Amino acid sequence: MNTSNQPIKIGIVGYGNLGKGVELAIRQNTDLELVAVFTRRDPQSIPTEAKAIHIDQITDYRDIIDVMIICGGSSTDLPEQVPYIAQWFNTVDSFDTHAKIPEFFNTVNKAAKDHNKLSLISTGWDPGLFSMLRLLGESILPQGETYTFWGKGLSQGHSDAIRRISGVKGGVQYTIPIESALDRVRQGENPVLTTAEKHERICYVVAEDGADTSIIEHTIKTMPNYFAEYNTTVHFISEEELKANHSAMPHGGKVFRSGITGTETKQNIEFGLTLESNPEFTASVLVAFSRAVYKLAQKGETGAVTVYDIPLGALSPKSAEDLRREIL
Amino acid sequence: MNTSNQPIKIGIVGYGNLGKGVELAIRQNTDLELVAVFTRRDPQSIPTEAKAIHIDQITDYRDIIDVMIICGGSSTDLPEQVPYIAQWFNTVDSFDTHAKIPEFFNTVNKAAKDHNKLSLISTGWDPGLFSMLRLLGESILPQGETYTFWGKGLSQGHSDAIRRISGVKGGVQYTIPIESALDRVRQGENPVLTTAEKHERICYVVAEDGADTSIIEHTIKTMPNYFAEYNTTVHFISEEELKANHSAMPHGGKVFRSGITGTETKQNIEFGLTLESNPEFTASVLVAFSRAVYKLAQKGETGAVTVYDIPLGALSPKSAEDLRREIL
Repeated sequence: MNTSNQPIKIGIVGYGNLGKGVELAIRQNTDLELVAVFTRRDPQSIPTEAKAIHIDQITDYRDIIDVMIICGGSSTDLPEQVPYIAQWFNTVDSFDTHAKIPEFFNTVNKAAKDHNKLSLISTGWDPGLFSMLRLLGESILPQGETYTFWGKGLSQGHSDAIRRISGVKGGVQYTIPIESALDRVRQGENPVLTTAEKHERICYVVAEDGADTSIIEHTIKTMPNYFAEYNTTVHFISEEELKANHSAMPHGGKVFRSGITGTETKQNIEFGLTLESNPEFTASVLVAFSRAVYKLAQKGETGAVTVYDIPLGALSPKSAEDLRREIL
Repeated sequence: MNTSNQPIKIGIVGYGNLGKGVELAIRQNTDLELVAVFTRRDPQSIPTEAKAIHIDQITDYRDIIDVMIICGGSSTDLPEQVPYIAQWFNTVDSFDTHAKIPEFFNTVNKAAKDHNKLSLISTGWDPGLFSMLRLLGESILPQGETYTFWGKGLSQGHSDAIRRISGVKGGVQYTIPIESALDRVRQGENPVLTTAEKHERICYVVAEDGADTSIIEHTIKTMPNYFAEYNTTVHFISEEELKANHSAMPHGGKVFRSGITGTETKQNIEFGLTLESNPEFTASVLVAFSRAVYKLAQKGETGAVTVYDIPLGALSPKSAEDLRREIL
């Protein structure tokens, strides 16, 4: 395991867009070292510059890797992988099915606690940075309203959900903030808005030959938590068009807290992200938090935690003294 | 001391604009109770709705108050008051002389640690929230630049400097971020910018009868450190206009982190505050952090800490379980 002045040893589970982003992000941090990428596929087929290992051999690395960053999808991969891997490794994941976080937390908490490991669940930018800003906003301005807007951008979780549908060959989903809603919030109206009143969802889907597109469209539009509550539009396109026009993965969004202090003093907090690549940015967040997980695990913390349990200083490679002198 | 379901008992030291703001902010939080305001002035003269007590009697409250929010000025009050009060109480302060933070931390740390108390130093919005965002930015996007812009807002230090000039009866100074600099940062140009290249200064001055306004204007514009390096505009106005239009204390600012992930992917983080009252907002931050200080002190933490040592969940009156379910 890590000793001081040795880089923190990181493993990646899953080598999709997020796993690739984690590999790139680790290279920007000299105190972190990527030991291996673990995959369910043939390790030879994985285009990583690190060692690629079949996931069946993951437990061979239990004394070598300090923190495992688990990069699977939220709908099926993470609920299965995280509680399993948390038995042997400290973990970080980006589980983002908001409605199922309490259940996921409890399962991971038990697995990690029983084996004296620490698991940070549901980090990234939402859940993650946006969650942190929502908490700051409502704690500092208790009399007020919080607004989260996503997009304009491609949602990984929602695109994954589309691609898992039978008969779907490929597809992407864009979350679009509804401009009239943004304007009302910016003008300090404090309107009551559901998530569905703030966003619409537009899907570009490639169907497999012979698949029934009306069934696919119905399956998407009625999928609970993901699409059922939204104004959702589904466009069927060719594979060529998908590649040509929908390969980039931009995203972003905003968190607002509009509050009142005293009797009628308006105070406004705004946080925004403009991202050319959602997976690369999410990966960068996961990597910074993997450092924090390592530090807290070294102090003896175990079980599942969230971004709310992490002192921010643990995210930085700098000492507490340097942080106070340089950037406080 | 506090037992569960009893409100956390807060004291205020100093009753200027910040102390008054703290009193207002505590009223917005049902889990907090203001016990008393401590003052060096005649307690009868303090227009608080709480009990006003002379500061010489502060130690009488050592078993009653959980957290003392110390609202003096950074230049002389806080360096003297915080180490003294930290012997008997957990404390929160807004010490904001960036260059002297390491020295202040060490003094307060010793006082608090020796007496098993916990002191959070240097919170508010800068240092405070902006410090947190600077840390998040550089930890998540290590390859990038951080930019802090202040304003539009009233600067107390610069207003004081104007008022000391011979022939000046009154005046205020606003710090304004320069739009073209903001745009270059937003576009990810990562320009090198001095403080003077990011901000301009606008002064509203009331001259005494018969004073030579051209001399006053020249004195302001050539004042080293304060104005000479900046694009400075001076407007002469009447005393009535000063009172009518420049009595509020608005402020705000922005922290940007513009970074690169992968090889050339631009990622941008932006955090902004638009505040109608600087002291009321700063007070609201101090109050949220007083809750966190109480919780961490209950867990046995002692010594001095900064915003970097606080898990964000401690700022909220909600349980960890509720936070995961409701806002993560």
